Amino acid sequence: MKDSAVLLISCPDRKGLVARVATMLYERGANILHADQHQDHGLGLFFMRVEWALNGHAEGETDADSSPETASFDLEEFRSAFAPLAAELEMRWKLSHSARRPKVALFCSQYLHCMADLLHRWRTGELLCEIPLIISNHKDVANLAEFYGIPFEYVPVTAATRVEVEAHHLELLESHGIELVVLARYMQILSPNFITHFPASIINVHHSFLPAFTGAKPYHAAHARGVKLIGATSHYVTEVLDDGPIIEQDVARISHRDQVEDLVARGRDLERMVLSRAVRWHLDRRILCYGNKTVVFD
Amino acid sequence: MKDSAVLLISCPDRKGLVARVATMLYERGANILHADQHQDHGLGLFFMRVEWALNGHAEGETDADSSPETASFDLEEFRSAFAPLAAELEMRWKLSHSARRPKVALFCSQYLHCMADLLHRWRTGELLCEIPLIISNHKDVANLAEFYGIPFEYVPVTAATRVEVEAHHLELLESHGIELVVLARYMQILSPNFITHFPASIINVHHSFLPAFTGAKPYHAAHARGVKLIGATSHYVTEVLDDGPIIEQDVARISHRDQVEDLVARGRDLERMVLSRAVRWHLDRRILCYGNKTVVFD
Amino acid sequence: MKDSAVLLISCPDRKGLVARVATMLYERGANILHADQHQDHGLGLFFMRVEWALNGHAEGETDADSSPETASFDLEEFRSAFAPLAAELEMRWKLSHSARRPKVALFCSQYLHCMADLLHRWRTGELLCEIPLIISNHKDVANLAEFYGIPFEYVPVTAATRVEVEAHHLELLESHGIELVVLARYMQILSPNFITHFPASIINVHHSFLPAFTGAKPYHAAHARGVKLIGATSHYVTEVLDDGPIIEQDVARISHRDQVEDLVARGRDLERMVLSRAVRWHLDRRILCYGNKTVVFD
Amino acid sequence: MKDSAVLLISCPDRKGLVARVATMLYERGANILHADQHQDHGLGLFFMRVEWALNGHAEGETDADSSPETASFDLEEFRSAFAPLAAELEMRWKLSHSARRPKVALFCSQYLHCMADLLHRWRTGELLCEIPLIISNHKDVANLAEFYGIPFEYVPVTAATRVEVEAHHLELLESHGIELVVLARYMQILSPNFITHFPASIINVHHSFLPAFTGAKPYHAAHARGVKLIGATSHYVTEVLDDGPIIEQDVARISHRDQVEDLVARGRDLERMVLSRAVRWHLDRRILCYGNKTVVFD
Repeated sequence: MKDSAVLLISCPDRKGLVARVATMLYERGANILHADQHQDHGLGLFFMRVEWALNGHAEGETDADSSPETASFDLEEFRSAFAPLAAELEMRWKLSHSARRPKVALFCSQYLHCMADLLHRWRTGELLCEIPLIISNHKDVANLAEFYGIPFEYVPVTAATRVEVEAHHLELLESHGIELVVLARYMQILSPNFITHFPASIINVHHSFLPAFTGAKPYHAAHARGVKLIGATSHYVTEVLDDGPIIEQDVARISHRDQVEDLVARGRDLERMVLSRAVRWHLDRRILCYGNKTVVFD
Repeated sequence: MKDSAVLLISCPDRKGLVARVATMLYERGANILHADQHQDHGLGLFFMRVEWALNGHAEGETDADSSPETASFDLEEFRSAFAPLAAELEMRWKLSHSARRPKVALFCSQYLHCMADLLHRWRTGELLCEIPLIISNHKDVANLAEFYGIPFEYVPVTAATRVEVEAHHLELLESHGIELVVLARYMQILSPNFITHFPASIINVHHSFLPAFTGAKPYHAAHARGVKLIGATSHYVTEVLDDGPIIEQDVARISHRDQVEDLVARGRDLERMVLSRAVRWHLDRRILCYGNKTVVFD
Repeated sequence: MKDSAVLLISCPDRKGLVARVATMLYERGANILHADQHQDHGLGLFFMRVEWALNGHAEGETDADSSPETASFDLEEFRSAFAPLAAELEMRWKLSHSARRPKVALFCSQYLHCMADLLHRWRTGELLCEIPLIISNHKDVANLAEFYGIPFEYVPVTAATRVEVEAHHLELLESHGIELVVLARYMQILSPNFITHFPASIINVHHSFLPAFTGAKPYHAAHARGVKLIGATSHYVTEVLDDGPIIEQDVARISHRDQVEDLVARGRDLERMVLSRAVRWHLDRRILCYGNKTVVFD
Repeated sequence: MKDSAVLLISCPDRKGLVARVATMLYERGANILHADQHQDHGLGLFFMRVEWALNGHAEGETDADSSPETASFDLEEFRSAFAPLAAELEMRWKLSHSARRPKVALFCSQYLHCMADLLHRWRTGELLCEIPLIISNHKDVANLAEFYGIPFEYVPVTAATRVEVEAHHLELLESHGIELVVLARYMQILSPNFITHFPASIINVHHSFLPAFTGAKPYHAAHARGVKLIGATSHYVTEVLDDGPIIEQDVARISHRDQVEDLVARGRDLERMVLSRAVRWHLDRRILCYGNKTVVFD
């Protein structure tokens, strides 16, 4: 079982950032497992992800290898010590214990391929999170939720009830302590109010290669345009529809032989892939947002 | 050396089309090398490409195998006999002798990667055409044209001279009997008048995954949007900019590490690939246009 | 609901094959939905797949469009009439009613990602078959089988019991009328005797880009070799391990950052994709085997 | 014009490596442009690539931004200061000035697509090197070499002359101060003696997805096996044929329609891509070899 800490940083770029962070960890005997940096030279921004072992030795070493000085890393002491440095360097930062599993709510409508895929990956340990809640405006997901032992809330939506439905959603999410909302082909548009409750914490999958074919029925639009590749995009949700920071995209080749229903079928595989990757990377604390873009440390 | 005929057909779909065309060829002893059909069930259209040997035997057979009945196929007799059937069935059709090499003009501006790629492929026999003319509004291509022994016309363009320049272009193209115009990163917009002279016979490469990022500086736009894949598109030119029938598209994965100049560099490879494929397929008579789409028989 | 017939043909290549088959269908008023041919010029072989509507009109037309002459196609009359032609032309051929769903048995061991994927696709109508039987040498699949309402046979295997286990397998398959066996990461090697009962009717997924990394632990071997792409392969099972006709392959890019466990995780997605495509194409009667290769009509 | 230093390091993994290297650079006021690390936890190895500006300010800044403290970085002082640390930490390391262009020799035989591609990329500034020498056992490349103004040595080879030819090659390479040899479809096998003169400095392209289809005629072998994807591989040459550390691989989808000559044609594009990427990454000092593998920092 991996027991590590992950520190995510974004700040104005300046000299010595890597040296100062790395030295601070070194002084505490941290065993760095992964470190990655990125600079946006145009904007003058610096991004960093560093992950280190909490039990004092690297993955792959057995306990027999551990020597007296590889005592456990004191995460809270580091947090306290790091805060002043972060303030001085104008950092936005997040320090996480990788063993703690974020609480995730899954939303869907009638199409269940992404939902079924996410649940299977979660069951087999590919997605390290808790899933205390599934919400849908359709009942189709009920059996699947039951199979995986996850509470399911059926919340139908009409134009007339949209406001109260969202209020109910927010109550549900708050009461379960939800940290990440995943829209697994949830076909309702969220209000700006809802979105502000989860900044960079709502992941959606759109069934096109954004920014092409925003809005409804993108496979129909792709077929009508005669494109030779179709795509899918996972992104964080912002107030502008289909415009949030892109996390992942993938495409598949099609030909004149493919009708709209073939595009839909092939697209399902793309949607599963790009959505599950985005969720996994988010859970693994690999993603940093800035402006309308993402840095994904792989 | 391949010596074959290619028949391209598009017409309203009805029963018996394959049977009637195939029987007509069979009665004349044609040895079919490739046959492909497609139906657009939505529009009720039928498309066919059939290629057969003109010397009476299939590829791969040696002359020693040829028996008395495998005499040469009389292409002109077939043309005459096919015309009434085509009229009856409301066909648009084109019958070509594959040994005849279409005359192609290449246009470019200052970027030469597509031009150099097309010329190398042509020299090595991958593109079966004649190239009697290269036109550019920059002089950079002169050495390359000379190396390949192709006449080069330097025709600078300004806003004031656009109309007369196009008239000069058309004279040059007509005097050389040009059948296909390839815009190998030619950065000038063609007038509707010019385009009507070459229906479905001008191939352009656009450096984005259309319909995303039409217009100028698509790599800058892709970088600003934060996409995770960039693309390139080859298409026939119509009066609407970047909107003609798409022939081929391809994409490459990028990451946050890639700056605009990296996108430009990776994009060059995509542009070369999608443009050269489109030209090859056109020359091999594999493409049928309908509406704003293409059928590409592979 | 699609109601169509599919005719698959392979035979020595000769002139007039398309004409004779197409004419025979035309004379019976068949409305051809898809037709595809292929010739292997080296081996002198011809392959054809033709699909036509059984209710007399093409997909997409409504009943209101149907005119008196679009009566139902008599499939058994055609079968009788076609047999002498097929004999004369030395055809191997198979005529199927696409509404008839083949009976498929799924085998697995402890890894369930392919199994879960196939079952979800089957439930949502992507795989048109019956699945009356799941067999495993592990009990892990029991819950999944129950969720989908499919009888599950737990048949443990040891070196000592291999022969009797296979006899038991064959009894189970025969009693359920199984026509296709899908090895969804079933980690036992089948005997030649078992394989001869299902010629070109056992589909396996191997977790490498064959012919690289045959045998056990291909992801470990790929990691050790330092490849930059990993792959997966679906193929028909023959007596030689990992050597049968390849149906589909796909790859994913990896880097030096990926450890063996990352390869395993990424590979799961590849395995799902290539196995499910192979099963769908088989069920759609799109695959013809010859020698050690496949023709897949898309 | 980029003026930067690149430091490549590989050493036994231990705590504080990043901190110590980064601090050393920070103390000298280095402005880090890119930094990347990798750890092989299984082997206990650490790899690092760090690139910093030599003129004291980051790319994108104009001279007007430079303040008094952004004086030029003293690369030779750093080299001297770094050497004792490197020795203490058992590092293999290489410090390069990116403005210095390595001297590269290109080898080819009769196929010129890779050669033409590399030369075009070099001319347009994509490959930052000098190319003082082209060697071939065929004369076909002479025109191309002349066009690009590069001295060409025609050195025919026979079984009888192999030893003396290689001695001649080595003389030529030494007299030109060649640091990297690129085999752009050079179809002769190099002797172990030759290879030892250029450790991790001979890049070859093999026209298959290694380790599948080593040796001669891999496209024929791929066609015979019936694979659904073909590939190409660029790698460093070692004494074992087609077995050196892989730098890059790519694949293209094929179908039953593709004959061997189609595979050859499609493969040419793959070969160009994987070879040119490998050469560019080598020239950009992005590659570290260890065991039989590469780390490629992108």
